[in-house]
Amino acid sequence: MNSIRILGIDPGLRITGFGVIEKTGSRIQYLTSGCIKSGEGALPERLKVILLSLREVIQSNQPQQVAVEKVFVNVNPQSTLLLGQARGAAICAAVLEALPVAEYTALQVKQAVVGNGHAAKEQVQEMVKRLLNLPGVPSPDAADALACALCHAHGGQGLGGFATAGYRVKNGRLV
Amino acid sequence: MNSIRILGIDPGLRITGFGVIEKTGSRIQYLTSGCIKSGEGALPERLKVILLSLREVIQSNQPQQVAVEKVFVNVNPQSTLLLGQARGAAICAAVLEALPVAEYTALQVKQAVVGNGHAAKEQVQEMVKRLLNLPGVPSPDAADALACALCHAHGGQGLGGFATAGYRVKNGRLV
Repeated sequence: MNSIRILGIDPGLRITGFGVIEKTGSRIQYLTSGCIKSGEGALPERLKVILLSLREVIQSNQPQQVAVEKVFVNVNPQSTLLLGQARGAAICAAVLEALPVAEYTALQVKQAVVGNGHAAKEQVQEMVKRLLNLPGVPSPDAADALACALCHAHGGQGLGGFATAGYRVKNGRLV
Repeated sequence: MNSIRILGIDPGLRITGFGVIEKTGSRIQYLTSGCIKSGEGALPERLKVILLSLREVIQSNQPQQVAVEKVFVNVNPQSTLLLGQARGAAICAAVLEALPVAEYTALQVKQAVVGNGHAAKEQVQEMVKRLLNLPGVPSPDAADALACALCHAHGGQGLGGFATAGYRVKNGRLV
């Protein structure tokens, strides 16, 4: 059976979360996840850390598709601009390796993974842990990135996808 | 005498201007300039056009330093986010080639080139034409990129630098 590897990214200027999963039929397997900390340097230096770290993640894990979370538009225009630049660097890492990039809002991601678009961060972490059968909860940024990859794996279709994987979920609980 | 090549970039999601100049002592020479149009595709595709086109400009012209204009923060947060992503892609093109990136505000650039931080676009175009001895005015985006490179060439020091190049400028006019 053909399998497909998906890299999920939750971009941020300070911390960028990433997670790689593999989908084979309806089975989904965790491969890796983590956080990229861009440090305290000048903006170009920080964007470089994001770009090159994600390139390394891509080259070591060889995903075929990338899913990036659409970022929150801050009330502070300067923060929004900075976040936009970080997100631009993350997308560049994917397009440099000629990978297709899909975008999902936080609402779509939470809806797909928790079944509630307004779920709390802890619920996302817990559901990601359960859906990927992890020994512990991932950090919030890695969990968001894995959730984005999971959302993409199910075509952003919400819980229908997960039901076929043997799970029934309601409001963030397995039932 | 050692010469240094500088790539100036005026980033935008729709149109990104670029310009390359070479500074040898106090002499400044025009090498190339132009506009990158990112097309009408999805965001990742447009960022890819910006990234790969600038990479091509860098690889063909071999600048040693890059100067990027700090972008205007729009009142519309969505536009600010899009602009930030385009600027992130432009900076990524430079850091990918391990080039140092300096940033200048539009005020600094206009002050350096026209002698007036609030100069009109046409004044910038006209001054860039004169300072680089061009046969015609460059397009607004290419002119802004060349102006940014000129600003960097003079260490953002304003008109003092240009005076030594044999020009005397006041309010955008050669005197």
